[in-house]
Amino acid sequence: MASGMRGRVQVIEFESAVLRGNAAGDPHVRRIPVWTPPSYDAERERRYPVVYVLTGFTGRGRMLLNDNAWSPSLDDRLDGLVASGRCGEMIVVMPDCMTRFGGSQYLNSAATGRYADHLVDELVPWIDEHFRTRPGRDARGVAGKSSGGFGAITLGMKRSDVFGAVACHSGDMYFEFCYGPDLPKACSVLQESGGARAFLEKFEAKPQKGKDDFLALNMLAMAACYSPDPREELGTAFPVSLATSEFRDDVWARWLEHDPLRLLGAHADALRSLRLLYLDCGTKDEFHLHHGARRFARELAKLGITHHYEEFDDGHMNVPYRYDTSLPMLARALGA
Amino acid sequence: MASGMRGRVQVIEFESAVLRGNAAGDPHVRRIPVWTPPSYDAERERRYPVVYVLTGFTGRGRMLLNDNAWSPSLDDRLDGLVASGRCGEMIVVMPDCMTRFGGSQYLNSAATGRYADHLVDELVPWIDEHFRTRPGRDARGVAGKSSGGFGAITLGMKRSDVFGAVACHSGDMYFEFCYGPDLPKACSVLQESGGARAFLEKFEAKPQKGKDDFLALNMLAMAACYSPDPREELGTAFPVSLATSEFRDDVWARWLEHDPLRLLGAHADALRSLRLLYLDCGTKDEFHLHHGARRFARELAKLGITHHYEEFDDGHMNVPYRYDTSLPMLARALGA
Amino acid sequence: MASGMRGRVQVIEFESAVLRGNAAGDPHVRRIPVWTPPSYDAERERRYPVVYVLTGFTGRGRMLLNDNAWSPSLDDRLDGLVASGRCGEMIVVMPDCMTRFGGSQYLNSAATGRYADHLVDELVPWIDEHFRTRPGRDARGVAGKSSGGFGAITLGMKRSDVFGAVACHSGDMYFEFCYGPDLPKACSVLQESGGARAFLEKFEAKPQKGKDDFLALNMLAMAACYSPDPREELGTAFPVSLATSEFRDDVWARWLEHDPLRLLGAHADALRSLRLLYLDCGTKDEFHLHHGARRFARELAKLGITHHYEEFDDGHMNVPYRYDTSLPMLARALGA
Amino acid sequence: MASGMRGRVQVIEFESAVLRGNAAGDPHVRRIPVWTPPSYDAERERRYPVVYVLTGFTGRGRMLLNDNAWSPSLDDRLDGLVASGRCGEMIVVMPDCMTRFGGSQYLNSAATGRYADHLVDELVPWIDEHFRTRPGRDARGVAGKSSGGFGAITLGMKRSDVFGAVACHSGDMYFEFCYGPDLPKACSVLQESGGARAFLEKFEAKPQKGKDDFLALNMLAMAACYSPDPREELGTAFPVSLATSEFRDDVWARWLEHDPLRLLGAHADALRSLRLLYLDCGTKDEFHLHHGARRFARELAKLGITHHYEEFDDGHMNVPYRYDTSLPMLARALGA
Repeated sequence: MASGMRGRVQVIEFESAVLRGNAAGDPHVRRIPVWTPPSYDAERERRYPVVYVLTGFTGRGRMLLNDNAWSPSLDDRLDGLVASGRCGEMIVVMPDCMTRFGGSQYLNSAATGRYADHLVDELVPWIDEHFRTRPGRDARGVAGKSSGGFGAITLGMKRSDVFGAVACHSGDMYFEFCYGPDLPKACSVLQESGGARAFLEKFEAKPQKGKDDFLALNMLAMAACYSPDPREELGTAFPVSLATSEFRDDVWARWLEHDPLRLLGAHADALRSLRLLYLDCGTKDEFHLHHGARRFARELAKLGITHHYEEFDDGHMNVPYRYDTSLPMLARALGA
Repeated sequence: MASGMRGRVQVIEFESAVLRGNAAGDPHVRRIPVWTPPSYDAERERRYPVVYVLTGFTGRGRMLLNDNAWSPSLDDRLDGLVASGRCGEMIVVMPDCMTRFGGSQYLNSAATGRYADHLVDELVPWIDEHFRTRPGRDARGVAGKSSGGFGAITLGMKRSDVFGAVACHSGDMYFEFCYGPDLPKACSVLQESGGARAFLEKFEAKPQKGKDDFLALNMLAMAACYSPDPREELGTAFPVSLATSEFRDDVWARWLEHDPLRLLGAHADALRSLRLLYLDCGTKDEFHLHHGARRFARELAKLGITHHYEEFDDGHMNVPYRYDTSLPMLARALGA
Repeated sequence: MASGMRGRVQVIEFESAVLRGNAAGDPHVRRIPVWTPPSYDAERERRYPVVYVLTGFTGRGRMLLNDNAWSPSLDDRLDGLVASGRCGEMIVVMPDCMTRFGGSQYLNSAATGRYADHLVDELVPWIDEHFRTRPGRDARGVAGKSSGGFGAITLGMKRSDVFGAVACHSGDMYFEFCYGPDLPKACSVLQESGGARAFLEKFEAKPQKGKDDFLALNMLAMAACYSPDPREELGTAFPVSLATSEFRDDVWARWLEHDPLRLLGAHADALRSLRLLYLDCGTKDEFHLHHGARRFARELAKLGITHHYEEFDDGHMNVPYRYDTSLPMLARALGA
Repeated sequence: MASGMRGRVQVIEFESAVLRGNAAGDPHVRRIPVWTPPSYDAERERRYPVVYVLTGFTGRGRMLLNDNAWSPSLDDRLDGLVASGRCGEMIVVMPDCMTRFGGSQYLNSAATGRYADHLVDELVPWIDEHFRTRPGRDARGVAGKSSGGFGAITLGMKRSDVFGAVACHSGDMYFEFCYGPDLPKACSVLQESGGARAFLEKFEAKPQKGKDDFLALNMLAMAACYSPDPREELGTAFPVSLATSEFRDDVWARWLEHDPLRLLGAHADALRSLRLLYLDCGTKDEFHLHHGARRFARELAKLGITHHYEEFDDGHMNVPYRYDTSLPMLARALGA
C-alpha cells in the first residue's frame, strides 16, 4: 500500500500524576502509542472518534504494535482495514496500565495504583486536548481482549458516561470458572517460593519464566487488583491462606464483587445506553471463558439489551484477528 | 525366591446379593482376588489378620495384580515383603467396587449401588467365613490409594467397628482443591457430548479414550457417588448445570458432606480408636491433594489423634511403592 | 458368560537352559502364561493350533493378562471371541523375552541373551510336548504389537519353517523414521547420566521413571539388540558416540541390517509361504511407523505377495482392540 | 533513563533491487530498523562500528523491537547496555530476510531469493552510505540466534571479507541432530495436506497455526533454502519423498553442504581472521543444538582458532538476554 494511505504511530511519553508514587513501585511515566488515521495529517480541521484498546494480562499498549509475520500489528491492521474501506477513520490509543504484578485490570487498587482514574480522568482528557478527537462518550469507545476485555466491559458498565461503545474479546468473567481452577496450583507455587513477596522477587530475577510462574503471577495480580489489603504482604490478600491452604471466603467475596456477571444487573441501564456492545469468545477457551460469555449474553437477552455476541472455534490465545470484526463495528457505532 | 515362600492368589467369583439389580446396570458377580500368605496352606490351623486393599478410580481389585516390569504386582510385592521379614503374614483381599462410571468411592449411592454395604456387610463376613482370618476389627485393616484412599479413610471414620487400621495414600479430600478445578472443563465436555448420558455412551463406544474424557468421567462419577438424584439423567445431579453452566450450590453442598476433611470433627473418636492411622501424599500431587492431606494431618494433631503422616517428593501417579511402607505397618498394627 | 465357556490360563514357570547365565544378568526362569481354549479340558484327545503373542517394549507375557476396565485382558478377549463364534479355538502362548534393557526384540544378542533361540528352539518344542498342539508350522502362528510386531514379522521372514502365519501390529520398521528421531535426545540423556551403565543403574533405582528415561532406555535397548559389542560398556555399541555426539555410521549400519524393510527382499519366498501375513498401523503413529508399514505393504504388493494390510485412525498406544481383527484371521489361517 | 541518553530507531523502507521478482513472490520493499546510539545525533562527525543482528526462523528485523514486559526490546536493551557503560556505542541494523516459507537462512536460493546478496552486496553498502559507519570488515559484525546464528556463522566463514566479528547464539548446525528428527513428522504433515504447495496455502489461510504446522513449515523452509530445485513443487526438493516416504539421500547431501560443522574445515582461515568468534548454546536445547555447538567448539580448539564458547542452563526459546553478553564483546572487538 502507498505509504500515503497509512496512518501514523506516535509514542507519547506520558507523565502521570495519578500513578506517581504508586504502591507497587511501578513507573509513573508511560509510553503510550497513539495511532492517527491516514487523513489525519492532511485534513487539519477534521475531528475523529477515538477508541482505547486495552491489552491482556502481561501486556501494555506497545505490545499491540509487536511484529508477527502472520498476524499484523495493530497499526498495520488498522491501515489495512481503513485502506480496504471496511473501517472508518478514527484515532486509536494504546494505554499502558501494566504493573509489577503483570497488570492492573484497569481498576483502582491500593496494592497497585489508581489505573481506572489514570485512564479515565487523566489520559482521556489529555488525548482530547492533544489530538483532534470528537470529544464526548458518543464518539469514544473502549476495546480489549482477556484482561483488556474485562477492562472494556467494566468501563462500559461503570463509566458509560465516558465510553459509549464497548468491544469485549474473551473478557474475564464468571470468576468461579476462569480463576477458581488456578487457585490451588497458584497456592502451591506461592508456598513453595516462600510467600507472595519471595515469589515475585524470584520471578523477576529469573531470565526465563515457566508456565506455572505465570499461572501464579496471574492469580497474585488478580488478588492485588480485587482484594488489596494494606495489612498483608505486598498489600494483597490472597483468597487462599498461604499458611494453611484454606479458602478465605471473605477475600473471595471481594473478588466476586468485580465479576462482570455479577455487576451486570446493577448496570443494566449503562449497558443499554451503549451505541455498541460487542462480546465474543472462543468455544475452546482454556480459561473456560465461553461459559461466562454465554451467561453474560443470555442475561443481556433476558434484559432486552441490544448486543452483538459471537463465538469463534478456537481458544484464548492468538486471536487479534477478531479485531477485524470489532474495530469496524466500533468505527460505525462511533460515527467514523 | 523359592516358590514355597510365595503366597497364593485365588480369584473368587463373588455373587453379590447387595449389588444385584444395581442402578447403573453393572454386574453383580465380581472377581475378587484374595492373597493368602506363604504359610497359609501348610499351617492349617493358623489364623491371620486381613487387609482390604481398595483401588483408585477406574480400578478394580484384579488391577492390583497387573504386571509391570519395574513395579511389582501386589502379590509379588507381598511375597517380597514377607520373604524379607519386613512384613508379617496376613490375608489380603482386593475388592471390585467398579461401576460403569469408573468407580463407586466405596459408598452407597442410588445412582450406582450399595458398595459400602457390599463391602462391609457382605464381603467381610464372607471372607471371615471362607478364609482363616482372625475376625474382629482389631485384626482387620483397610488401605487404598486415591479414591481407594478416600474409601479407606471414610471407612475408618464411619465403620471403625469393622476396620481397626487404616492406610490412606493420596486420598481424595479437600474437595474444593481436588475436584473444584476440574468442574469447568468437565462441564464443557459433557455439554459438547450432548449431556451426561450421551457422554457416557460415547465414552464407552470409543476404542481409545482421551485425557479430557477421563477428566469428565471422573467428575460424573463423583456426582453419581456424592449427589445421586433419581429425577436427573443417569440418576445423578451434576454440581454445574449443563443447561446454563451455573454452579449449583445445593448439589455441591452434598459433595462436601463426603469430604473427609469435613467429616473429621464428627468422627474424631473413631479415628482415635484405630490401631493405625497412616496417611501420605506426594508434594506435587496433580490433584492438589497434598493440601488436603496437610490440613487433615494438622487437624489430627490438634485433636491429639495419633497418626503417621508422610510426604513423598512426587505426584499422584505410579506410587504403589508406598505400599512397602504401609503394609508392614498395617501388619504390625493388626498383630501379624 | 458361563464359566464353562471360558478358557483357562496356566502360568508356566519355565526354566530356560538357553537363557541361563545370559549377559544382561536377567533371570533364566520365566513365568509364561498359556491360555487353553474352552473345550480343552473336556475334549481330551483334541489338538489345537497355537499362536505365540509377543508383547511390545517393556512388556512380558503376563502383561497381556493385565486388567483394564475398558480393554479386556488377552484371556478375556479370547474368551469373548471364541464365545461369539468369531474365532476358532486355539492355544495362545505369551512368552517372556524381557530383559534389563526393557526388551530383546526377540533376537539373539551377545549383550542380552539368545531370545530367538529360547523362543524357537526351546519354548516351541516344550509347548508342543506339554500341550495338545497341532505341531508344525502350518498350525503355528506368531503375533505381536510394536516390538512384538517386529518380532512376529522377523520370525515370519527368518523362521517361516517354524511359524506359518504372522500378525504384525504397528511393528518396528523403517528405522530411520522410527528410531532416528529419538537418537539425539537419547544421546543427551545418556551423556547427562554419565554413560550407558550409569544411566541404567539410575533408571533402575528411580521409583518413578520419566518420559525421557523411557526414550533413552528404548534406544539403549535397541543398541543392545542390534549392535552388541563386547568391547563396549554393557556390551553395547550405541549409534552415537557418547564422548563426541558424533554419529557412528558403522554401528547404525548394523541396526539397519535388522530393519524388516531391508530384510524383505531377501525373504520374499518365506513371506510368500505364509498362510496369513497380516500387517496394520495407526495413521497417527507417534513413532512414524505408518510410513514403514505403507512402504512394506507396497513392497509386498510389488512382489505379488498375498497379505492383509489395514490402517486405523489412531496412534501407537492402547490398540489391543486390533487383536479382535487379527486373532480370528490367525485362527482361520491355522485351521482352528 | 533520561531520553537524551537513548539511542534512536529509524525504520528504513528499503527497496531491494536484488529481491525484486523473487521466486517466492515476497515483497522487495522491506522495513529495516536501524538503531543509532545516544551520541549519534549530537556528534555529527563521529563514525561508529556497525553490527547486523539477524533474527531466527519466522522473524524479521522489526520483531527484535517487540515489546515484552520482562525482556527488553533490542533498542531498549542497547540503551541499557550503553547507559551502564558495559557496551560501546555502535550502529545496529536489523535486516528483514523473511520469506513466505518463514525464513531464508540468509542464503541465496532459487526457491526463495538472493538473500545473501541482498544483505552483503546491497544492504551493507547502503548502510555505509547513509549512516556514519566506520566502513570495512574490522568495524562490521554480524550476530543472530537460531537461524540468525546460522546466518552469522555462515557469513563469518564465507564472507569474512565483509564481517570481521561474529556472535552465533544457538545457531543451526549438526543437521542430523537439529533437522533429522523433524523430517518424519514434517513428511506426515505435508502428505496429509496434499503436498508442499497445498500445505503452504492452508498454513497461510489458517488464522491460528499449530505446533505441527510450524514444524512442517520449518522443514519446508530449510528445503527451500538448502535444496531448491526448479523441477519440483514450490521450486523445492524435500529430503523425503512425499510420494513414498523414502529418504532422498541426494537431497539430504545438498542440505549437509550447508552445515556449519561441515563447512568449518574449509573456512578455518576465515574464522581465524575474525576479531571475535562468539558461540553459545543452551544445555537443554530442544533442537539438540548443544551437541552441534560443542562439536564446533571442539573443532575450533583442535584447529587452534581463538573463540569464546559459552553454555547456558536453558533451552532454545526466550534467550535474548544473552545479547547482554555478546553485544558488549562485539562492540569491544569492533573498536567501539
